[in-house]
Amino acid sequence: MKKVIFIIGVSGCGKSTIGKLLSEELSIPFFDGDDFHPEANIKKMSEGVPLNDTDRQGWLETLNSLAKEQLVGNSCVIACSALKQKYRDTLSEGIIAETKWVHLTGSFHQIFERIHSRPNHFMPSELLQSQFDILEEPKDAIQIASSLSPENSIRKIKKELMTTSEFGLFGLGVMGKSLCRNLANNGFKISMFNRHVAGVEEDVAVSFKAAHSELSQAEAFDDIASFVNSLQQPRKIMLMVNAGKTIDYVIEDLLPYLSENDVLIDGGNSNYVNTKERFDYLKTNGIHFIGTGVSGGEEGALKGPSIMPSGDVEAYENVKPFLEKISAKDQNNLPCCTYVGPEGSGHFIKMVHNGVEYVEMQLLAEVCTLLEASGNNPDEIATILESWKDTANSYLLEITIAIFRKKEGNDWLVKKILDKAGNKGTGNWTTIASTQLGVPSTLIASALFSRYTSFYKEERTLLNKHFNQADHLELKVSTNDILEAYQFARIINHYQGFKLITEASIAYSWNLNLSEIARIWTSGCIIKSNLMQDLVDVFKNTTNILTDTQFSEGINKYKPSVKKVVSQSVLNDISVPCLGESIQFFNGITTAYSSANIIQAQRDYFGAHTYQRLDDDSGKNYHTNWN
Amino acid sequence: MKKVIFIIGVSGCGKSTIGKLLSEELSIPFFDGDDFHPEANIKKMSEGVPLNDTDRQGWLETLNSLAKEQLVGNSCVIACSALKQKYRDTLSEGIIAETKWVHLTGSFHQIFERIHSRPNHFMPSELLQSQFDILEEPKDAIQIASSLSPENSIRKIKKELMTTSEFGLFGLGVMGKSLCRNLANNGFKISMFNRHVAGVEEDVAVSFKAAHSELSQAEAFDDIASFVNSLQQPRKIMLMVNAGKTIDYVIEDLLPYLSENDVLIDGGNSNYVNTKERFDYLKTNGIHFIGTGVSGGEEGALKGPSIMPSGDVEAYENVKPFLEKISAKDQNNLPCCTYVGPEGSGHFIKMVHNGVEYVEMQLLAEVCTLLEASGNNPDEIATILESWKDTANSYLLEITIAIFRKKEGNDWLVKKILDKAGNKGTGNWTTIASTQLGVPSTLIASALFSRYTSFYKEERTLLNKHFNQADHLELKVSTNDILEAYQFARIINHYQGFKLITEASIAYSWNLNLSEIARIWTSGCIIKSNLMQDLVDVFKNTTNILTDTQFSEGINKYKPSVKKVVSQSVLNDISVPCLGESIQFFNGITTAYSSANIIQAQRDYFGAHTYQRLDDDSGKNYHTNWN
Repeated sequence: MKKVIFIIGVSGCGKSTIGKLLSEELSIPFFDGDDFHPEANIKKMSEGVPLNDTDRQGWLETLNSLAKEQLVGNSCVIACSALKQKYRDTLSEGIIAETKWVHLTGSFHQIFERIHSRPNHFMPSELLQSQFDILEEPKDAIQIASSLSPENSIRKIKKELMTTSEFGLFGLGVMGKSLCRNLANNGFKISMFNRHVAGVEEDVAVSFKAAHSELSQAEAFDDIASFVNSLQQPRKIMLMVNAGKTIDYVIEDLLPYLSENDVLIDGGNSNYVNTKERFDYLKTNGIHFIGTGVSGGEEGALKGPSIMPSGDVEAYENVKPFLEKISAKDQNNLPCCTYVGPEGSGHFIKMVHNGVEYVEMQLLAEVCTLLEASGNNPDEIATILESWKDTANSYLLEITIAIFRKKEGNDWLVKKILDKAGNKGTGNWTTIASTQLGVPSTLIASALFSRYTSFYKEERTLLNKHFNQADHLELKVSTNDILEAYQFARIINHYQGFKLITEASIAYSWNLNLSEIARIWTSGCIIKSNLMQDLVDVFKNTTNILTDTQFSEGINKYKPSVKKVVSQSVLNDISVPCLGESIQFFNGITTAYSSANIIQAQRDYFGAHTYQRLDDDSGKNYHTNWN
Repeated sequence: MKKVIFIIGVSGCGKSTIGKLLSEELSIPFFDGDDFHPEANIKKMSEGVPLNDTDRQGWLETLNSLAKEQLVGNSCVIACSALKQKYRDTLSEGIIAETKWVHLTGSFHQIFERIHSRPNHFMPSELLQSQFDILEEPKDAIQIASSLSPENSIRKIKKELMTTSEFGLFGLGVMGKSLCRNLANNGFKISMFNRHVAGVEEDVAVSFKAAHSELSQAEAFDDIASFVNSLQQPRKIMLMVNAGKTIDYVIEDLLPYLSENDVLIDGGNSNYVNTKERFDYLKTNGIHFIGTGVSGGEEGALKGPSIMPSGDVEAYENVKPFLEKISAKDQNNLPCCTYVGPEGSGHFIKMVHNGVEYVEMQLLAEVCTLLEASGNNPDEIATILESWKDTANSYLLEITIAIFRKKEGNDWLVKKILDKAGNKGTGNWTTIASTQLGVPSTLIASALFSRYTSFYKEERTLLNKHFNQADHLELKVSTNDILEAYQFARIINHYQGFKLITEASIAYSWNLNLSEIARIWTSGCIIKSNLMQDLVDVFKNTTNILTDTQFSEGINKYKPSVKKVVSQSVLNDISVPCLGESIQFFNGITTAYSSANIIQAQRDYFGAHTYQRLDDDSGKNYHTNWN
């Protein structure tokens, strides 16, 4: 909305300086009112005769006309003392656009000293005093103390000028709250919404705003209409609510208040298939929809998460300044946020991210099990993991070290935690997506199923007694063997994760950039690691990390260790499903002639499903009467 | 529909014999017309005076009244020469029910000889000749040659009596055709339908009927209306079409022609979720829907498959006589077909059946890989597998033996088959269902992913060269080790399969009977085996086979071998994902305190997901600031 901004105040308060700076900042013209006095006024003033209200009237009308002319094209800034309300009435008369008053304030002494601190400036104290005498404090003006530096003055004026917010955030859970603070810390004017549920969720947004000083300029709502109306158009509203049906309900609640070209951003862990459906649905309503993965947990969301937005590119341009600003930065200080691709591709890669995360977590759990079975207590395990940072550093390694060091009294806290692992659905979805796409994401499934198995605590305890499972005391593996097995499995994990992304990109024609995906995962997210950093370059040359020189060398170096660790674990009754599957999969994907011929023969035998032959690459199907 | 069946023909043609047999076969009363002559007629006949038409009129009217009286309660069979059309008009006058004429025919000589071949029977040839003289061939009568044996006569009459078919089969693919022949072989009068697709599928049903003598009484259609109208109401139509959207299209095509209480049976491998949806949809249209798994492949479908129907019990009662009759029979000669449960439970257990089948096939493929790596050629492998029949017999073992023996010229055919294993979706669905239900069906996922990996033939070949994967020559395992590892993994496979069924039964309140499910899988289906036979009794006492004495002993006995085989395979670069996962899973499900506590700590660290504590079983959630 166009506006005319009048910078007002007594002579010498700094109107020209602030006016010019503000006009530059806002890229709109600046006019100094003094330049528009008629000849008669100029003559009077040069003769030292004060202007009376009659003298001023024509001049004020000239400025009023100037503002109106300017407003045909653009907003503008006009400096003019405008000390009396009736002057201001004349200045703003008939202006339909928004009129804003910025009053530069100060005491007589402050202004007097300010004037005389500037070289070659002089003003009789009587003249200044007369101005203070006639000054009628404007109501509704933005008050800026002259003592503020010009930079701070401009910043304050800008914030105050925004009566509407730039960005809305809907849903103040753990992640939503952190993102709000992140946005505010980055200087964005935001509106925040949380629903009102009597007795359960009351005044969430207001209380949250009150608790954090950086949110002083933020607007807090629990009424949808007010929330939406507080936003600049086209509106940008980020939804941080539970994935699933809730998103659809929220969309329906918002729709009546939205306008064409508004952008909704779903920052939850939504299923990529649903994201596509919502994208299509909202398109028919003229609303843009961006589905974005956000990784980094509570802390990442606050300090800079990894952000994975997808949808249509034009809509992304609207939200890009916000998302890129609040995202983590990679080692080259580039934002860990990039336009991923069309449809639900952002949520898809976030889902795979979480799948890879499941595996990295499970591998660390298995590794720690082996270290414990080797006789190490939690402190010793932490020390060993600490020493791995040189070769295998990652965020998850770091937090696992901290976890193993955490004590509760004299005991280690980790040992007191119930061994039933929860999950929120993304590991589940990744497994489903890979089965649907025909991609063998064996490690993700294995990590997911390990969590499921953990949930059968009662049965595990029963069967442990029933089978009198032995203690495992002859584990002939070194700490370095375990490290190398871990590294081997991590390579396979990342191979499988990016393989799934590659296949989805082909299946859905998403044209995803693996290197960019690896890059935005080098900071801010849960699976950031040195290995991920290496992948940024690897994926510039290949889509298959197993054929990359560095990773091939890693595989060859670590393979003897993983074979040793897995076979020893099996012989000692220790469950290491992900480590075990890493070598099983590697052996499978490097087998030139597999045993699938036998399965094809069986299928043809009982179901006449036919088979193809090695000696006929025409794709012809053969059927045999095997009896 | 009630009917009166008149058995007619000249004296001595066998009316009483056939009439009595038919009445027994159809469980309806039989009346010999000769028993109803009035005194006057009897007197005349005993005096050797032929009856004239006036004499007969009263008698025929008596029989007509008899028929009408009987028809109040039931159908009936009445024997009466009824040689002239006017006699027959009297007999059928005013009868609203269906009137059927069975004419026992023969030449004068045939009948004459037939009469005199019976002891103590005599008839002057003149008398017989007079009957032939007055005989007016009935139109629309079922013609039965007197030369036919009584059994064959009855069979033919029964078939001819059915003007409408008892059962319809829609879709003549491999399985549909086999089921048609099975139904016909079991004496059912069926209608068969296959769509008409010009140039692609033309006259499929007619050609199929022509190709198999057992289908001579079957009706063949490629027009839906005629097909549906050929069926007795309430109609029973079994759909044997591709699972997926096709089913819905077929349902829509059929609906306009169906009547209330008709029963549709989906015998394809439909997704159980869709079956529930279709069940609900058809219910609103007054149509019953039975979803049924059918296992046994082409041969099983022909000779007796395992059938797993679900839906509402009342509808099942309608189709039970057909499904149970054509199903395989267990060792006690009970049908391998039972009402499984409500909704899509039949398709669910068929899906799990196929998942278990995937694993059994994969295990055999792995076992054969190990036997080959141990230096055995296909014939030797077949011989070894043959020797396993005593302890590990199964249908899949048997066909695998046959496969390894099959030669093409001097070479073994199996070695010429391309090693890319196909799949038709059920293994995929089982994996998805288990991830959705939170059940760790690790072996099914592993078998599925092994097929997926096999599809990356090009990459496998490339990576095999790239990593110069060694030949595996130091495999220190015996044939018996391999057998025992195989048996170990099969127990885990069946444990997991039935676990998935158990959890689904709880989640969906299906109240499934595991023992009955095992029982209908002991014959007719692809996973029939000695092990499955054992499970019938095991599940009468427990839902957890791992706590059963016999299976526990098996586990303990086989465990050293599976540890040896898996560790040796890993050390020798042989991929045995299912064997490997069987021991990993066993170790997981028998671990009293798992490493899931570490995962819970990690989740709480980065996502504030909270955790529970071992020392607080109240279910309270704890959160720690781990830093």
